Amino acid sequence: MKIPSMLLKRMYTFASLRNDAEGCRFSIKNRLADAVLYKLIEVKIDGQAIDLETITIQLEDSTRIMAPKVTRDNPIDFPIRKVLHVRMGGLKVATGKHKISLNFESSYGALSFAVEDSIADRPLDRVTVPYDKENDYAPKAIAERRKFIEEFGNGTLEHVSQYSFDPELLRGNIENFTGVAQIPIGFAGPIKINGEHAQGEFVVPLATTEGTLVASYNRGIKVLNLSGGVKCTVAADCMQRAPVFIFEDARAAREFKIWVDENIEPITEAAESTSRVAKLQYIDTYLAGKFAYLRFNYETGDAAGQNMVGRATFAACSWILDHATNIKKFYLESNLATDKKHSQVNIMRTRGKRVIAEAVVKREVLIQQMRVDPEGLYYHSNISNVGAMLSGANNNGAHSPNGITAMFIATGQDVANVAESSAAIIYSELTAEKDLYISITIPSLIVATYGGGTGLPTQRECLESMDCFGRGKVKKLAEIIAAVTLAGEISLGSAISSLDWVSSHETYGRNR
Amino acid sequence: MKIPSMLLKRMYTFASLRNDAEGCRFSIKNRLADAVLYKLIEVKIDGQAIDLETITIQLEDSTRIMAPKVTRDNPIDFPIRKVLHVRMGGLKVATGKHKISLNFESSYGALSFAVEDSIADRPLDRVTVPYDKENDYAPKAIAERRKFIEEFGNGTLEHVSQYSFDPELLRGNIENFTGVAQIPIGFAGPIKINGEHAQGEFVVPLATTEGTLVASYNRGIKVLNLSGGVKCTVAADCMQRAPVFIFEDARAAREFKIWVDENIEPITEAAESTSRVAKLQYIDTYLAGKFAYLRFNYETGDAAGQNMVGRATFAACSWILDHATNIKKFYLESNLATDKKHSQVNIMRTRGKRVIAEAVVKREVLIQQMRVDPEGLYYHSNISNVGAMLSGANNNGAHSPNGITAMFIATGQDVANVAESSAAIIYSELTAEKDLYISITIPSLIVATYGGGTGLPTQRECLESMDCFGRGKVKKLAEIIAAVTLAGEISLGSAISSLDWVSSHETYGRNR
Amino acid sequence: MKIPSMLLKRMYTFASLRNDAEGCRFSIKNRLADAVLYKLIEVKIDGQAIDLETITIQLEDSTRIMAPKVTRDNPIDFPIRKVLHVRMGGLKVATGKHKISLNFESSYGALSFAVEDSIADRPLDRVTVPYDKENDYAPKAIAERRKFIEEFGNGTLEHVSQYSFDPELLRGNIENFTGVAQIPIGFAGPIKINGEHAQGEFVVPLATTEGTLVASYNRGIKVLNLSGGVKCTVAADCMQRAPVFIFEDARAAREFKIWVDENIEPITEAAESTSRVAKLQYIDTYLAGKFAYLRFNYETGDAAGQNMVGRATFAACSWILDHATNIKKFYLESNLATDKKHSQVNIMRTRGKRVIAEAVVKREVLIQQMRVDPEGLYYHSNISNVGAMLSGANNNGAHSPNGITAMFIATGQDVANVAESSAAIIYSELTAEKDLYISITIPSLIVATYGGGTGLPTQRECLESMDCFGRGKVKKLAEIIAAVTLAGEISLGSAISSLDWVSSHETYGRNR
Amino acid sequence: MKIPSMLLKRMYTFASLRNDAEGCRFSIKNRLADAVLYKLIEVKIDGQAIDLETITIQLEDSTRIMAPKVTRDNPIDFPIRKVLHVRMGGLKVATGKHKISLNFESSYGALSFAVEDSIADRPLDRVTVPYDKENDYAPKAIAERRKFIEEFGNGTLEHVSQYSFDPELLRGNIENFTGVAQIPIGFAGPIKINGEHAQGEFVVPLATTEGTLVASYNRGIKVLNLSGGVKCTVAADCMQRAPVFIFEDARAAREFKIWVDENIEPITEAAESTSRVAKLQYIDTYLAGKFAYLRFNYETGDAAGQNMVGRATFAACSWILDHATNIKKFYLESNLATDKKHSQVNIMRTRGKRVIAEAVVKREVLIQQMRVDPEGLYYHSNISNVGAMLSGANNNGAHSPNGITAMFIATGQDVANVAESSAAIIYSELTAEKDLYISITIPSLIVATYGGGTGLPTQRECLESMDCFGRGKVKKLAEIIAAVTLAGEISLGSAISSLDWVSSHETYGRNR
Repeated sequence: MKIPSMLLKRMYTFASLRNDAEGCRFSIKNRLADAVLYKLIEVKIDGQAIDLETITIQLEDSTRIMAPKVTRDNPIDFPIRKVLHVRMGGLKVATGKHKISLNFESSYGALSFAVEDSIADRPLDRVTVPYDKENDYAPKAIAERRKFIEEFGNGTLEHVSQYSFDPELLRGNIENFTGVAQIPIGFAGPIKINGEHAQGEFVVPLATTEGTLVASYNRGIKVLNLSGGVKCTVAADCMQRAPVFIFEDARAAREFKIWVDENIEPITEAAESTSRVAKLQYIDTYLAGKFAYLRFNYETGDAAGQNMVGRATFAACSWILDHATNIKKFYLESNLATDKKHSQVNIMRTRGKRVIAEAVVKREVLIQQMRVDPEGLYYHSNISNVGAMLSGANNNGAHSPNGITAMFIATGQDVANVAESSAAIIYSELTAEKDLYISITIPSLIVATYGGGTGLPTQRECLESMDCFGRGKVKKLAEIIAAVTLAGEISLGSAISSLDWVSSHETYGRNR
Repeated sequence: MKIPSMLLKRMYTFASLRNDAEGCRFSIKNRLADAVLYKLIEVKIDGQAIDLETITIQLEDSTRIMAPKVTRDNPIDFPIRKVLHVRMGGLKVATGKHKISLNFESSYGALSFAVEDSIADRPLDRVTVPYDKENDYAPKAIAERRKFIEEFGNGTLEHVSQYSFDPELLRGNIENFTGVAQIPIGFAGPIKINGEHAQGEFVVPLATTEGTLVASYNRGIKVLNLSGGVKCTVAADCMQRAPVFIFEDARAAREFKIWVDENIEPITEAAESTSRVAKLQYIDTYLAGKFAYLRFNYETGDAAGQNMVGRATFAACSWILDHATNIKKFYLESNLATDKKHSQVNIMRTRGKRVIAEAVVKREVLIQQMRVDPEGLYYHSNISNVGAMLSGANNNGAHSPNGITAMFIATGQDVANVAESSAAIIYSELTAEKDLYISITIPSLIVATYGGGTGLPTQRECLESMDCFGRGKVKKLAEIIAAVTLAGEISLGSAISSLDWVSSHETYGRNR
Repeated sequence: MKIPSMLLKRMYTFASLRNDAEGCRFSIKNRLADAVLYKLIEVKIDGQAIDLETITIQLEDSTRIMAPKVTRDNPIDFPIRKVLHVRMGGLKVATGKHKISLNFESSYGALSFAVEDSIADRPLDRVTVPYDKENDYAPKAIAERRKFIEEFGNGTLEHVSQYSFDPELLRGNIENFTGVAQIPIGFAGPIKINGEHAQGEFVVPLATTEGTLVASYNRGIKVLNLSGGVKCTVAADCMQRAPVFIFEDARAAREFKIWVDENIEPITEAAESTSRVAKLQYIDTYLAGKFAYLRFNYETGDAAGQNMVGRATFAACSWILDHATNIKKFYLESNLATDKKHSQVNIMRTRGKRVIAEAVVKREVLIQQMRVDPEGLYYHSNISNVGAMLSGANNNGAHSPNGITAMFIATGQDVANVAESSAAIIYSELTAEKDLYISITIPSLIVATYGGGTGLPTQRECLESMDCFGRGKVKKLAEIIAAVTLAGEISLGSAISSLDWVSSHETYGRNR
Repeated sequence: MKIPSMLLKRMYTFASLRNDAEGCRFSIKNRLADAVLYKLIEVKIDGQAIDLETITIQLEDSTRIMAPKVTRDNPIDFPIRKVLHVRMGGLKVATGKHKISLNFESSYGALSFAVEDSIADRPLDRVTVPYDKENDYAPKAIAERRKFIEEFGNGTLEHVSQYSFDPELLRGNIENFTGVAQIPIGFAGPIKINGEHAQGEFVVPLATTEGTLVASYNRGIKVLNLSGGVKCTVAADCMQRAPVFIFEDARAAREFKIWVDENIEPITEAAESTSRVAKLQYIDTYLAGKFAYLRFNYETGDAAGQNMVGRATFAACSWILDHATNIKKFYLESNLATDKKHSQVNIMRTRGKRVIAEAVVKREVLIQQMRVDPEGLYYHSNISNVGAMLSGANNNGAHSPNGITAMFIATGQDVANVAESSAAIIYSELTAEKDLYISITIPSLIVATYGGGTGLPTQRECLESMDCFGRGKVKKLAEIIAAVTLAGEISLGSAISSLDWVSSHETYGRNR
């Protein structure tokens, strides 16, 4: 992977400067790309060069090395997201602000940093949930935490503490691990799907504690299966990060938009240098006041991709900051992404997968199974449209987030994305045969079959039960989820519609 | 509990008529209130009275009783949500539609029903996830389902099948139970809260598979604790169901609204007759076209209350249907509730708890801990406001649904309510002392400490770790969740703001 | 009219302190209620009492009176919205800030004011559009302005300067009057209306410069008339002002809401003391952070009422400020009114008139006149619903603001209220006879038949052409406007639908 | 101008078939492009060829020509938007449906049409506003209409009937012209603008009947001028039409989107063939269910351009319909345009001009002139943001539609576009010098300086007073309007903020 040189000087962040038993220390985190350090040239504190002989370097949990020992023949690998600790023996820094500078020879040439940091004037004496710096996923660390929680809080963690896997697996998935939530899973289905990626019948894991949810989806699935199944389509696929650039005035912001469009190639190159997977599709620029909000849209393969696009956009912005003129300020995120939020921009321009499930529900099936006719369901859907307009709702359907959430929990998705994934557009019409055509469009379904929580034990098993684990499966999963939500719409829609009280009890002779 | 007599004739639903080995049968479900049946007076099919001697009655899993054996001295209890099976020995009904009528003498006087039902003309030959009619939560039923899933789907359910509790506990929480999702829990905190219900320090269970989430909330908690903690307030509390009544024209709908306001007392009485807990606060009526949408607002105690308000509203609507004139159609739900959806009506008029967390974050703490000053965080919040306006987002903050979702999963909430609970309004200002006042308003946080999934083993333990299980605790839980989300806003907001790239590197001398 | 005493001390505003030829002066504007001044007790500037003999008092354009001449026997009337000038002969005040205090004996007892004001240090030398302090509506003043505009700007105002009325009429309607815009009016109709207030046939004045607009509405009117006319209903009527009260914390804001509900009687009394017309219906309180947003809802008779409710709310807030505790800050408006803006709160809770027009459009009429069948129009309306959801539009219909705006201009409405009045909800369905039921709900139509521009010459004639001028006519006008918009929806909807290209040209044999 | 051949057969619409005194007739309207007819080859009714000798052809108000007389040497011009009448002497058609076909030799080669039309079976006997077929703008026609309105309605049209221009000017601007609305105009300013198109000082015509509006804007202008004026920028410029294409399923809709992107060149060529001005910028495609909504974005020069883009999009769609496969249905508009509606898509992606006005308001000027300090105004703007979020408003400012509407009326804009133009985003911040930076972004300001009502007498004079009439002026006008709205925000914002009641009267010592 080639890294644009202009990224290098911004690829690290400093962790805090502090005194310790041996002297003082500070830390650097690699934010952007794997690097190799050949030599430490110089360290200065407040302009004063520090004797390199007193300095040790340590990559996270590896062993410490004396600074002069780092050479081209004995380099230090400095991979992305790792932290490098720099300790200066025998040196104590006073309370207050200090300037630190640092020079390396590296696989990218000379790297130099400068930062101002400060030392707090009193030690913090806080009670916190115990954390074990050596190995926080070891049984001892977990047991200590459990003990703390049971003593500090109330009650025991008897059930929470029972899990069937090695906690080491959780590195990268959670901090302060103490146990598990056991969420009951019921399987629904099989549901018959005619997708481009999901074809055939699938059993569906639903993790929920809400009674009747599995039964309700199952009823809808029955109706769909008897009507020939569900057709599913992934219409778009993109994940966003939306930095904002701030200028002197609106005119400069507008010129910047034009400049970005003209420089889309190197920007794309910078963005895509950070991952083999992330592909920049396009950038939408939204102008307001003296701000240019850039919404970067990426394909992210089988990962949901929020972190991947964060890194890619950071790299792209670094290139921009080096090449554009007149930028006054910059933030990597501006609330236009719009991560973990419902938004109209998601509905319009997709976030995650835009997936559509369609079916023609047979008239007789609907009547037999759900005791409602297509006209009744259709009439109610029009009433619901007005209800959604009155309420300003992000979904004119009945309850698609129920199925989505239950599948998200079961399959290791980032469940907070229910915020975005809760949006849906239901459309139905009566066919010439008086059957019911119905579709659900989920414009911002955020799913993964790789990365995040998808590889954890129960989550992976649930994905595998649908043959949806791993690479090349994410659109299949999106199709299955969409199909299931459609089943749920038919089920709850019918339940509501069959309670349709008519004025003339005589006409229908039905008491409910 | 007194049941208004006009409810009675609508208190049941019929399950389907079908032939079985012994003859034919149909079923009635009690939807509304506990009843006692003293005597079966008459059963007619297609106008033809059936010999009562051939009829047996069976309450769900209880033993069957010959119809004539049911007397005042030997009555049948018919509790709410139970199903009563009526079997007619030796009678086969033909394919097609049939009229059934039924008369009982009951604790509410004479009850009579009439329904039209039909018999399907061919048996369904579908493969479905196995279900055991006798006891679907027994080890045998679960094992059979596991076997089916492992064979029908792909892979095994080795981890899914490991749980630490008796599945019988899950009755009412899930159908087709097959195992559990094990979601890792990390504890954050303790967080210092100055609420009206939550007072003191609380450890916080976060169930998530997203790396850094727990760490990020913990950082925010540290900042808040060092600033003196979080002040929390539950500003409103209500749960909705929104039926729609359809009229000849808009004028009749408007007159109906006036009628409802005039009859609020008996409507309230009817609604509240269904539960000791649900209290009707008020009804908002929204008029559009010839429709009157009624949004019933209830207090629901420590339950989230969606089902409770459904029953109460059904009872209220039954009273309305009996007393109002000119209603042409009626649906129990109209999309104005707006269950499992973000909506502006939720933001404006609350759904679940409207809870606010506030803090004055000390300038020095922010700078020391987060490397950002109050001005920077504040500036970014204004940029985010514009971003939210441009995108039409339901949240001008950073990521409150992350913490909410993690706590919802851990504590047995209905996680699909993240759709509603994702809305938030962040407001910040600089104090005279140049500290940062910041508040988050969550207008539709839907939580429970009783009912639903809250009583399941790990969920209850998590609630107990915060002393939030059971009655009288729901506002305490709401306050804790709000406090935690505020911590997350400070943490992520600071992370974004500290990446604030300034044009003049010289000025600040910082490489990031 | 009784004025609550606590209002009195806030009933005035000071205009600016300045030096003039004779000495110095300042002015007071009466904002709230008619008063009578019996005696000037004391005037102090910077704590220094001014000799009353050097002071003159002048009510706007009346004659000046020496301060000692004002007595119980010779009082000064000080009506609402008038300005009182206080001049101090022979006294010059220095540049910078000064404290002024003032004591009167009045019909409300002792009144005392104190204000700090400042004197600008240099005269402004600005070119401005000429303004004549003596009589700005006199021909001379107007002619001078015309001359200035023609010279300063480009071209002449030949046509602008031609109007058929005495400009004196415009006092209170416009400042810097220079001429008129001549907007062409076309009449459409007559349209047949079956309203509660508008009954019969009405010709409709449409002021527009958009070709085909009148013709298009006329086509729709023809269809409606041939179908039996339009049924109209005013479903609600309210006008708002939304002050915000700011507290120490959210808890205080919530307590304030409760306090407001408990004190609704005196608050209502204070609000209603300012006008014979304005009636306070109810107050909605919206809580967010430490803010309590109060949305006051009033009936305002035949006026649109924005000013009326401003005064009433100011009076109510004055009472509140005197009686409530812990209020930190207060603004009379908070953006929740939401004047001159589309908003969801307007759609939900009405602003101005909530008016609904309905019709059953006959199948044959639609086909004959518009070359579209009901199914086609209906199908398109469902497509439009999805379009509105995708776009986040405030109107799922075709173009209701066209007709509304043209009638607003013709009839002297506050045309900027098109912002609110642009919202609409269209609902249609096919009847059993395959005719088209269609309704439009305009939730925030802001109209007047009294006050504002309604009494100006052409505006009044247009109102009178529909017998809609003056008191008791406002709901009639609302009904007529709604009926006309419905005509426009049918007309444009049909035009779009008849362009419905079908895949099989053969089937229909039509080239378009 | 080259017309793509595939457009030709769709370039006309038929007007209705009917019997008249001489026989029967039908009409064709040219919708798309100027053509020349060389010869009428054949006319058939119900498959029966009509003797050409009995046929006459007449272009609107021109003289009739016998069909055989039309030859290459004596062709008929058939310009766009004109109607051609075809009369068949001596032939009466029966009530009911008839097939008509027609063949021409033309400047575009052979043209043939076929249509099915029907004859109504009874004459309509409706009272309507009189219309003169010969010349509806002649004094006689206008006088007759006036008489009708005065008799049918109530009162007179004395003032309405007074206008200073020749009604012939109104052809294309209004139908059924009867007189004018005289809307008073006040001039504000001059306002100092530093735009790219508007540079210098401008007087501003405001047509309104709302007292204080002109004065209020004038106050804001004074503040801005004293602060150095307003900087204005047009950030984007586009006008939309949004057809919808309907498919068998979502997959076909998605493939169509790809196809559109691939065929953007010929689609653009087709669209741009209809006008010298309209330039297609790009097409946004929004997918939902089986629908592909295409939002065409055009530059439209100095016209607002709604009609222009309608024709262009119609041409583009004709090309699409001829070349794409599988389209089931098509509508030229889908509610995504979103004409005459507020929408989030307008805010995000511009409609008309996206224009921004900015200023740094000097602290001392604000205090001196408006009696509010920058902190107060700024604080209130943050309160208003929360208010806008709570209410779901399309504008977080005070009242920008007031100024926009007044200028729209004065300058001959399509005033109904206030619906779109009402959206605005206000952003303010305190500068290092404690002045107030404030900007307003109007994302969908729809203005013209050419076409529509801009050329009418008073409207043109008002445009000319700002040197904004005609070609090349539209962005100048947009900048002036934006500058004026900013003045209004400062004026009303200050008025509200200066009423900021503080709890401690002592601190400020001010009574208001």
